[in-house]
Amino acid sequence: MHQEFALGRIGLVSGPDLPDAKLAYKTYGELNEARDNCVLLPSYYTGTHASYEPWIGSGRILDPERWFIVAVNMFGNGLSTSPSYASPEIRGAAFPGVDIADNVIAQHRLLTALGVQHIRMVAGWSMGALQAYEWAVRFPEMVSAILPVAGAARCSPHNFVFLEGVRAALTTDQAYDGGRYSSPPVSGLRAFGTVYAGWAYSQEFFRNGTYRELGYSDVGYVLDDWADDHEHMDANNLLTVLGTWQRADVGNPARGGFEAALGRIRARCIVMPGTSDLYFPVADSRIEADLIPGAEFRPLQSNLGHIAGRPGIRAAETDQIGDAMRQLLDG
Amino acid sequence: MHQEFALGRIGLVSGPDLPDAKLAYKTYGELNEARDNCVLLPSYYTGTHASYEPWIGSGRILDPERWFIVAVNMFGNGLSTSPSYASPEIRGAAFPGVDIADNVIAQHRLLTALGVQHIRMVAGWSMGALQAYEWAVRFPEMVSAILPVAGAARCSPHNFVFLEGVRAALTTDQAYDGGRYSSPPVSGLRAFGTVYAGWAYSQEFFRNGTYRELGYSDVGYVLDDWADDHEHMDANNLLTVLGTWQRADVGNPARGGFEAALGRIRARCIVMPGTSDLYFPVADSRIEADLIPGAEFRPLQSNLGHIAGRPGIRAAETDQIGDAMRQLLDG
Repeated sequence: MHQEFALGRIGLVSGPDLPDAKLAYKTYGELNEARDNCVLLPSYYTGTHASYEPWIGSGRILDPERWFIVAVNMFGNGLSTSPSYASPEIRGAAFPGVDIADNVIAQHRLLTALGVQHIRMVAGWSMGALQAYEWAVRFPEMVSAILPVAGAARCSPHNFVFLEGVRAALTTDQAYDGGRYSSPPVSGLRAFGTVYAGWAYSQEFFRNGTYRELGYSDVGYVLDDWADDHEHMDANNLLTVLGTWQRADVGNPARGGFEAALGRIRARCIVMPGTSDLYFPVADSRIEADLIPGAEFRPLQSNLGHIAGRPGIRAAETDQIGDAMRQLLDG
Repeated sequence: MHQEFALGRIGLVSGPDLPDAKLAYKTYGELNEARDNCVLLPSYYTGTHASYEPWIGSGRILDPERWFIVAVNMFGNGLSTSPSYASPEIRGAAFPGVDIADNVIAQHRLLTALGVQHIRMVAGWSMGALQAYEWAVRFPEMVSAILPVAGAARCSPHNFVFLEGVRAALTTDQAYDGGRYSSPPVSGLRAFGTVYAGWAYSQEFFRNGTYRELGYSDVGYVLDDWADDHEHMDANNLLTVLGTWQRADVGNPARGGFEAALGRIRARCIVMPGTSDLYFPVADSRIEADLIPGAEFRPLQSNLGHIAGRPGIRAAETDQIGDAMRQLLDG
């Protein structure tokens, strides 16, 4: 089971408050006496703290005998405060816009309450990577290392457009009703998953029949699985976190813009885009790595597209991620 | 104005008949005495015969003083027999599945009626390229050259998945009603365009602000334009031609499969994928070029994604397409 950390009423970057805010999280291992063994894993889109468990355990990348691992859920993911799990006044369509920064500020309070003053590494896949960058920019003295896997320091314009597409597929279902649905917009949720399936993998993944390695006997099963999977998600939760993603940008004006923000990172950093990722493309990560002092650019060699970074997906990808984590943690 | 060629009742590859079938087309220039100056341009998705006009004219790639150009509309595009333009018995949702082969067989009858026994070149962008391949495989003795631009000899599994996504975005609109709509499913049509916008260009197109060269001052206008454009299309027409695309494959069993089919091409061929195309990727075209005897593989260098091949889009792309056409026509 996970635990909950109560934040009370918090002000959001977007303006309104989040009353009675809660972060759901789970810890693995113990904070050591030196308080220098914390590894933070912020959740990714449609994932939870538990999604990182393939990386955690004895004989896995992160051994709880050695590391104090904190896996934390983003606002809107259904476990932390979310449209589906909030005070009545902000439930459902009334839920305010939550930003990556709001998540990181709340996570900072959680870690402080857990006695953590210093983080050995923030690692994450996809939206987890968005949060890792924000951590390194917002708290440069507190974070020793970050491993952003298949992510970015901001949502690129192309990524924004792709996300508008999946949003449109969902909201076109009249049953969505501007978020005021009483029963789920099943057709829209399935369409959301169907559109997403085209973006999640790579062209080569389909060309070479790599989907069989993931247990899909043919392409139809890939489509069915994505539709089935999303059918059971909450539409307002999905769109809340989608907005968090679309607004992601470490380079706000108060920081002097994007280049200046990345330039203030002091954490050791391995920037690890997936080589066949269609929406966090290698070229974007190359630009970001060049802006971060001392960052290493080390693409994750994979034909799985964006999915390359999903914890536990295949040994070939896990090995590359594990090598990078060990280097950052032991270096 | 275009002309119509009446085919009468035709049997379709998918089984049913198309009663009272008509091909809409337009010719430019005259068939010469030697009858060796015909250039065929089959239409592309959401395009018409007129969409090729940026390639046609004095001082353009194809001069009607020299070439007898036949630009022909695919079944389902709204001008040739289509769900929106058919006998009552097959109107709307009742329209049968039309294949690339059905289009090519009908085009062959049209050209025969026009006195054409030999085609100097079949050229086309996107679904126009799908038809060019089918022409070269089906009538190897009749076609001297093909220029498939940003297309393929079959719909790849990834391309199929992407198209399922745009289909899902449209059909999720309850107003679509299985194709039996009495007023257009406006929301679904707009969602269709919105999803498509993410696929049409490249990541670099957005990263570098190349959209400004196409007259879009920001990304929001790209999205609006795609939604607005598709709002005025007929949903059943769109999905009929989408099905034509998804079933495209020159390698039917009667031909001994895909490799054997491409191996029988006798036309000179320049295979011209767009270097940043997200759904007809260079790697697929590379494989196809290797299977076509004597084919030249010559990528269209462009950061416009799939749109690189759209007639008249930019001078840089038009020049490359023009060079290839001139080489095929004069060589």
